[in-house]
Amino acid sequence: MLNELSFSDAASSIKSGDISSERLVRDCLDRIESRDRDVRAWAFIDPELALSQARACDTASGFKGPLHGVPFGVKDIIATHDMPTEMGSPIYAGYQTGHDAACVALLRAAGAIILGKTVTVEFAGMAPPPTANPLNLACTPGGSSSGSAAAVADFMVPAAFGTQTAGSIHRPAAHCGIIGYKPTFDRLNLHGVWPAAQSLDTLGLLTRSIDDIELLSAVLVGRPAKLECSPVKTPRIAICKTHLWDIVRPETIEAIEIARETLSIAGAEVEDLILPDSFDELVAARDIISSYERARATAYEWFSHRELLSEPLQRGVAKGFGWKYEEYTQAMKVGADCRRDLDTLFNDFDTIIAPCTAGEAPADRNSTGDHTHIGMWNLLHVPSYALPTHKGPNNMPVAIQIMGRHGGDDALFHVAKWVLEKLVPA
Amino acid sequence: MLNELSFSDAASSIKSGDISSERLVRDCLDRIESRDRDVRAWAFIDPELALSQARACDTASGFKGPLHGVPFGVKDIIATHDMPTEMGSPIYAGYQTGHDAACVALLRAAGAIILGKTVTVEFAGMAPPPTANPLNLACTPGGSSSGSAAAVADFMVPAAFGTQTAGSIHRPAAHCGIIGYKPTFDRLNLHGVWPAAQSLDTLGLLTRSIDDIELLSAVLVGRPAKLECSPVKTPRIAICKTHLWDIVRPETIEAIEIARETLSIAGAEVEDLILPDSFDELVAARDIISSYERARATAYEWFSHRELLSEPLQRGVAKGFGWKYEEYTQAMKVGADCRRDLDTLFNDFDTIIAPCTAGEAPADRNSTGDHTHIGMWNLLHVPSYALPTHKGPNNMPVAIQIMGRHGGDDALFHVAKWVLEKLVPA
Repeated sequence: MLNELSFSDAASSIKSGDISSERLVRDCLDRIESRDRDVRAWAFIDPELALSQARACDTASGFKGPLHGVPFGVKDIIATHDMPTEMGSPIYAGYQTGHDAACVALLRAAGAIILGKTVTVEFAGMAPPPTANPLNLACTPGGSSSGSAAAVADFMVPAAFGTQTAGSIHRPAAHCGIIGYKPTFDRLNLHGVWPAAQSLDTLGLLTRSIDDIELLSAVLVGRPAKLECSPVKTPRIAICKTHLWDIVRPETIEAIEIARETLSIAGAEVEDLILPDSFDELVAARDIISSYERARATAYEWFSHRELLSEPLQRGVAKGFGWKYEEYTQAMKVGADCRRDLDTLFNDFDTIIAPCTAGEAPADRNSTGDHTHIGMWNLLHVPSYALPTHKGPNNMPVAIQIMGRHGGDDALFHVAKWVLEKLVPA
Repeated sequence: MLNELSFSDAASSIKSGDISSERLVRDCLDRIESRDRDVRAWAFIDPELALSQARACDTASGFKGPLHGVPFGVKDIIATHDMPTEMGSPIYAGYQTGHDAACVALLRAAGAIILGKTVTVEFAGMAPPPTANPLNLACTPGGSSSGSAAAVADFMVPAAFGTQTAGSIHRPAAHCGIIGYKPTFDRLNLHGVWPAAQSLDTLGLLTRSIDDIELLSAVLVGRPAKLECSPVKTPRIAICKTHLWDIVRPETIEAIEIARETLSIAGAEVEDLILPDSFDELVAARDIISSYERARATAYEWFSHRELLSEPLQRGVAKGFGWKYEEYTQAMKVGADCRRDLDTLFNDFDTIIAPCTAGEAPADRNSTGDHTHIGMWNLLHVPSYALPTHKGPNNMPVAIQIMGRHGGDDALFHVAKWVLEKLVPA
């Protein structure tokens, strides 16, 4: 079925005339029709709207751009001019933004078809979503980009947007066994993306193939579809257990240790990296920043529609308004200082490999799992990938997290691809 | 007339029972009624809405917060749930966001009354606005926060929001002879503020009294209304002519030289600061960043409503899409490197004083004036004030620009207040 194609394979098959956009979109819609009653990945789908755009692609005289005719999923905190944007909140039931987010407009201009809106946790926070993990419906798909990850993993759409403030791209990517890409902070345009915490929020991608990251990034930042910088031959890799090693589960320890051994045999220079003690403060600092900023970003809803916020979010916002300004600025300083130190550490490495989630997706639909291991790196603003390289005791996916230097997204792409090929041979 | 009160004086007079909110709001509305046909500072005013909120404040059993009953102006790129937000663009004529921006919700929760929406240049860019300079109707008020500056300078409202990407707070503040405060980048929450260029956009304030900055900042960042840190007694001041000294006009040279002399006599340690040569690249780097990011932020309007964008904006967006990604990232690196160097330079100074605009407001309603002198500091993300300390040959105001260390907004407030008291004694 065409819905199993990766985004970039679908794009080239449409370009070569081997498949039609309509057939591809129809197969994705059929998959949704048969599966989404259980998975609940979608907040909004209008099959006829998607099909009419697909037919327009098929009958157009030329190609709109490198994404011509390929469907894409949009997390439901991201504005679309022709579909509601509900933020996973009853406050915004049926809400029409009246315009597209920058990222949506850029994908459409390059020919992509917005298939629908994917379920987000309420305001991209922590409340449990209705979505199930498509690999095991009793498990959480992770959050907050729950619907995007579940839809991509379940072959309902080849790729989708996610956003990350703590672990909201990589956690669902890891739990659903797909690829998560969290760019350098501020790399992708955020206009029309509903904010959670402005000094942490990052727009990113969820895909099944790493080549899709190269293609979609090219459109979003405005460069040729193929990267010009050349891949590293034998990457210098730092394995970083972090100060949180005591709270990872055996399957994650195994994933990291197998990566160390396999990549070393494959020719990488692999070393251990012990971060300075100051990095131990990152988890607490990120929590303060996120909570302080989220409270302010939620000011209108808090003061005008408090009763429509979930209990967990109400507690979060109340806590956020409780921080002293000095506590917030001190936490911001922790982040800035560690960013500077990390940049120096990166003189010696091409990439850092660290735990992603604690382990497999919890068999608990009332939680979206733990974001601690991801959140500390998110505060550091560096680009990162979640790569599903391993399986846990319940045969659910386990990911490693790999980081690049601030601004080094393109170099990291090559390393991530190399790592993935070595750890999960085709 | 009560419309001549500063924001903080109005707040204390309402608190003490000396004046009513209704009377204050009525005097502001009367001033608008008599003057705005000429000045055209307002994009939207609903007198009855404002008056009913004022009456509700007057009859309430307690005080809502430290801003109880005082009217405030909101630049028309900032979301309000009860008024249109039109971005100065026909694309958004009558546009309803359906929610308040974070900054608006925070002011309302502290008791402020949103008097109306002030005219913005189209998407906070460069096209000439309908607004006139209230001090001389033949002159530009500056832009893009044209309406906010004109309304505050003309005693239509005591204070208003502005936003700055190049010089959009300080230029209109300088040209209209009021105070502009541009916080450290990322200090104030931007949710609901329509973006121009996300790595430059900063929300700030326009007021007639510097004490208003202390009061309003307190509400926006969440700290007590009075600052705890103590004022500097004899500030260490660097006078920085910058590499743009050749293009400032005599009145600005005079403003800087008088500041140097007067502050030195008043007890400041005054030295000259010559910036490293690398800072000469800031103007070009800021232009590239702004243009690249603005094109992407305007992607929806560009691809879907191009014919409704002004000619200047169309040219700007086309140029922005023309930059190579590598040119953009190189410009970002210039900014980051200079920020690091500036932070080191600030070890020796409390503040830097530099030119603000080239000179008085141009007697030309088809331009909003020059932002170069402001824009270079804006890329450095440091907090700054425009302080109207001087008059030019046409008796129009001339401002100096004073900068503080990244994150040092509260310390800079004390220095700015000291500087203003010495240069413009009450």
